[in-house]
Amino acid sequence: MLQGKFTLSASIRMPRNAWKGWAELQVSRDGNMFKVKKLNLESGGTQSVIMSKQNAYGMNVNVADRVEIFWNSGSLIAVVELCERTVPPGTVGLVKEVWENRNIPDEVHVRSMPKPASVGYIRERLMGQPITPEKIREIVFDIMHNKLSSVEAAYFVASAYVQRLSFGEEEALTRAIVEAGETLSFPKKPVLDKHCIGGVPGNRTTPIVVSIVAAAGFTVPKTSSRAITSPAGTADVMEVFSNIKFSNEDLVKIVNEAGASLAWGGSLWLAPVDDILLKLRYPLRLDPPSFLLASILAKKFAVGTEKLMIDIPMGKKVKDMASARELAGRFKNLGSRLGMQVEVLITDGKQPIGHGIGPVLEARDVLEVLQGRGPSDLREKSLLLAAKLLEMGGRPDSQQLAQQLLDSGQAYQKFKAIIKAQGGNPEVTLEDLVLCTQIHDLSATEDMTSVQYDSEVLIQLTRMAGAPAIKGAGIYLHVLPGGAVKKGQKLITVYAGDDTRLKTVQDYLERHSPVLACQRVLESV
Amino acid sequence: MLQGKFTLSASIRMPRNAWKGWAELQVSRDGNMFKVKKLNLESGGTQSVIMSKQNAYGMNVNVADRVEIFWNSGSLIAVVELCERTVPPGTVGLVKEVWENRNIPDEVHVRSMPKPASVGYIRERLMGQPITPEKIREIVFDIMHNKLSSVEAAYFVASAYVQRLSFGEEEALTRAIVEAGETLSFPKKPVLDKHCIGGVPGNRTTPIVVSIVAAAGFTVPKTSSRAITSPAGTADVMEVFSNIKFSNEDLVKIVNEAGASLAWGGSLWLAPVDDILLKLRYPLRLDPPSFLLASILAKKFAVGTEKLMIDIPMGKKVKDMASARELAGRFKNLGSRLGMQVEVLITDGKQPIGHGIGPVLEARDVLEVLQGRGPSDLREKSLLLAAKLLEMGGRPDSQQLAQQLLDSGQAYQKFKAIIKAQGGNPEVTLEDLVLCTQIHDLSATEDMTSVQYDSEVLIQLTRMAGAPAIKGAGIYLHVLPGGAVKKGQKLITVYAGDDTRLKTVQDYLERHSPVLACQRVLESV
Repeated sequence: MLQGKFTLSASIRMPRNAWKGWAELQVSRDGNMFKVKKLNLESGGTQSVIMSKQNAYGMNVNVADRVEIFWNSGSLIAVVELCERTVPPGTVGLVKEVWENRNIPDEVHVRSMPKPASVGYIRERLMGQPITPEKIREIVFDIMHNKLSSVEAAYFVASAYVQRLSFGEEEALTRAIVEAGETLSFPKKPVLDKHCIGGVPGNRTTPIVVSIVAAAGFTVPKTSSRAITSPAGTADVMEVFSNIKFSNEDLVKIVNEAGASLAWGGSLWLAPVDDILLKLRYPLRLDPPSFLLASILAKKFAVGTEKLMIDIPMGKKVKDMASARELAGRFKNLGSRLGMQVEVLITDGKQPIGHGIGPVLEARDVLEVLQGRGPSDLREKSLLLAAKLLEMGGRPDSQQLAQQLLDSGQAYQKFKAIIKAQGGNPEVTLEDLVLCTQIHDLSATEDMTSVQYDSEVLIQLTRMAGAPAIKGAGIYLHVLPGGAVKKGQKLITVYAGDDTRLKTVQDYLERHSPVLACQRVLESV
Repeated sequence: MLQGKFTLSASIRMPRNAWKGWAELQVSRDGNMFKVKKLNLESGGTQSVIMSKQNAYGMNVNVADRVEIFWNSGSLIAVVELCERTVPPGTVGLVKEVWENRNIPDEVHVRSMPKPASVGYIRERLMGQPITPEKIREIVFDIMHNKLSSVEAAYFVASAYVQRLSFGEEEALTRAIVEAGETLSFPKKPVLDKHCIGGVPGNRTTPIVVSIVAAAGFTVPKTSSRAITSPAGTADVMEVFSNIKFSNEDLVKIVNEAGASLAWGGSLWLAPVDDILLKLRYPLRLDPPSFLLASILAKKFAVGTEKLMIDIPMGKKVKDMASARELAGRFKNLGSRLGMQVEVLITDGKQPIGHGIGPVLEARDVLEVLQGRGPSDLREKSLLLAAKLLEMGGRPDSQQLAQQLLDSGQAYQKFKAIIKAQGGNPEVTLEDLVLCTQIHDLSATEDMTSVQYDSEVLIQLTRMAGAPAIKGAGIYLHVLPGGAVKKGQKLITVYAGDDTRLKTVQDYLERHSPVLACQRVLESV
C-alpha cells in the first residue's frame, strides 16, 4: 500500500476480486504524490530519483525514464532508478544533486515525462544513420547537462563503431564540446600549443618545448593530462615542481604573467563534457578516432590556440607509417575545419626517451636539460619540436633560435617564471627532487653495443614501482637507447614505493627482461 | 589528508617541496586501509563501492574499475563509483548489495583488481570481431553475476549493431541466458507453447489457445510479459482473473495440477539475465534481432518447451512479408539449433482484434469466447492458432478438435482450472470485471460499410485512458474491423481512469480519428 498522503481518484472503482497490490496502481489527478527522502548520496552528476518498483510500474515508468517532480513553487526533471528497499512505496529518494541548492518540500508530485529528443538521435546513429550537426550538438549538450543516463550516452560512443563519424559530424562534435564549456582568450597573439599522443616512456619534452617557445615571446597556454595507463603524464611531472590545479581565472593570470602555463587540464572548466565522454570510454578503453580527435582539439580550441604542433610517436599507440599518416591527415583536416593550423611530426616512438621514467625521475631530466645538461635524446627531441613550433609562429631561423634559447638559459628562466606563476619554488634543485629509497639495480649480463629496451616492460615496471601515484617511484636507465654497456655494469635502477612493490618488481624481473630479446640475440652472434 | 587509521609506509620519503595533497597519494603495504560506511542504498544489483576521488586517484583506480575489498576472514570484488562528498577520503561507502548478508568489519583493506576478461571480449566484439561461444557465455555469466557495470554491458548490446551476431553467437547467447538461470522440467510430454511478437491491440488469444491445447491433454507452461509500450500484456489481462506472480516451485505445482499456466514471466527465476539485458535495451528501445530471438527462445527453452508455435502479426512491428519471412526463418533456425521444433504463422496484424482493448476489457472478451460467445475475430484467430499447436502435438484432426474443445466448454473448464490453480476465482463472471466509469462515447459521423481502425491511435487512446496500470481503463470497439456502421451509431467507448485522463482522451480525439483516413475517403465516393 502506498504510504504518505496519497490522493485516491474517486472515479476508479476496484473490481470485486481485487488482488493484493491493486491499490498500488492507482494514480491521482495530477501526478502521484510522494513523500521526499533526501538521500546522503551522490549519483555522480545525474539528477536521479529513486522509486520503488511498484510505484514505477504503477506510473508506467521504468529504469532510466524521466519523471517531472513538481511542487507549489518549483519543478525539476529527474531520471528514475528503481529499488526494492532503499525507499518504501509512496516515497521518492532524491540524490544530493537533486536536493542540494533547492528548496524541496516534504511532499512532491511526480509524473512521467518523455525522453529527451537526443535519445532518439543516439538511436538513429546506432542504427547506422549519420545525423545532422544540430543533433550532435543536442546530444553533447544533453550529456553535459546530465539529461542522459550513462547507458544512453554510452550508446552514443558505441555508435562510432557502427559507422565512423563523418567529417561534418566530427566537426560538430568538437564544436559542441567546446561550446558546452568556457573558452579563454589571450591578448598576446599568436597562441601556440603542442600535443603528443603519447605512448613513449620518459618522453617529457613538453616543459622544455613550452619554455623555449614562450621564451621566444609566444603565448603557450599549455594544459596536460595525468597518467591513466602510462607511468606519468606531464601533469604528474609538473606536480613535482608546483601546483597544477587551477581555475580558468588562475590560468589566465598565469599565462598573462609568465607567457605560458604547464597546468593540469582536469581542474579547469574547459570542454568539461569531454571528461564525461572519457568516463564512458574508459571502461572498455575505447578510442573511437573522432572522439579522440575531438577531445584533443576541443581543449586546444577552447584556449584559443591558433597554431598547434602534434607529435605522433610511431611505436606503441600508432603502429606503422600508414596509420600515422592517416591520423596526421585527420588532425589537419579537423584543425582546418576549426580554423586552426595544425602541423604534425611523426617521430620514432619505439624506444624510451631520457634517463628517467616516473614523475620525479622525469622532472630531474627536464630540469637537467633546461640547465644545459641532461639526456641527449630528450634534449634533441625537445629542440626539434620547439623549432617546428617556432617556425609555425613565423620564425624562419627556428632551429638556431631554439638552440640559442636553450643554451643561453632563457628557456630555463622562462620555466622558472612558469613555476613561480604556478605557485612553486623556481629555485628547486635536483637534490630537492627526492626518489624512493627501496632500490633494485639490474646489471647487464653480457656486453651490448646498442641497447634496445622493451618499452612495455619498462612501463609495467614503473607502474609496479608505484608511479604515478608515488612521485618518487620509477626507473632510471643508466644507458640511453642505442648506447653501449659492458657485462656487469648497471643497466637500470628501479626506485620502488615500498618493500612489497620492490618485491613485485623483483619477481617481475625474474620473468621479464627490460632489454629486447632480439637485441640480446644480435649480441650473441 | 586521509582520515582513519592509515598505514603509512615507512619507506616513502617526502620531497622537501611536497605539495598539498601529497600525503593522499601514499599507499600501504597490502592495499589501502579504509573505514567502512554501510550506505542505506541499493545500486540495483552491482556490487558497488563508493570512494573519494582522491583515494581513487592515489590507488590508480577510476570509475568502473574493480577493487578487491578484504579483511581477516573474507573478501569480495566491487566496482568503483567516485564521489566528492558522499564519503570522505579514508572511508569507503558500501551499497546494500555489498554489506547485506556479509559480516564486514569497520575497517577493510582495498586494492585494485584487473577487469574481468569479459570486458575485453565485449571490446573485441564492438571492434567488429565475432567472438567464440565460450566468450559469449562468459560475458552473459558476468552480466548475470553483476561483474560488469551497466555501461560495460551496454557496449555488448551495442556490438550487435556493429556486426550482427552469427548463428553460432546467437545460439551461444541463448544457451548462456538459459544456463544463467534455473530450468524446469515437466513429466508429461510433449511440452507445447505459443508466442506472439505483439503489436496488435486486443489480440488476447493466449488464454484461449492455452486452454484449448491444455484441454487436449498437452502440457503448456505458458509465461507472459506485462505491457511496456502496449496497452496490455497477457500478464496484465490474467491479473484481472488471478494472481500471476509465482516462484518456479509454484509454477511447477500449477502446471502439474492444471496442465498449463498463464503466469507472469517477471517473477519467475527463468533466464533472469534477460531482465538485465532488457534494462540495457529499454532506454533506447533497442531490439537487436539476435537479442530479441534469444530473449524469447531462452524463456521457452528454460521451461522445457519441445514444440513452439509463433504468431508473427504483420503490421506494426513487422512491416512486410519479406521481413516476416526472414524473422520466421531466424526463429526456426535458432529453434532447431536448440533442438526445439518451431512453427510460425504470419497473421494479419493491421487491425485490432476483439471488442476490448485494455486489461479488463480484454479479459471480458476472453471470458466470452471461452463461454461460447464473444467477438468472432478473436474466436477465429484463437481456433486457428490452437489448431496449429494441436497439429504440432501430433493431432491430425486438429481443426475439428480445437473447435470441439471450445464449443463443448472443455477449454473453458481448463481455463477455470488454471485460474483456480493460480489462486483466482474460477467462477468469475462478466459482471465481476468492472470498468472505469469516466466514459466517452464516439459515434460514427457518416455511414461506413467496412470500418478500418488506426491501431496507433487506439493504442494511444488506451494508454491515455490509464491502461495497463488502471485495469478497468481502455476502449470498447462497438464495431469489429470490417463491420458496418450507420451515421450516429456508437463506434467506440473509452473508459478513462479519472477526469483528467478523460479530458486528455477527449482533447486527443479532437485531433485524431481512431478510424483510418483512407477508410473515410472511400466512404465519401
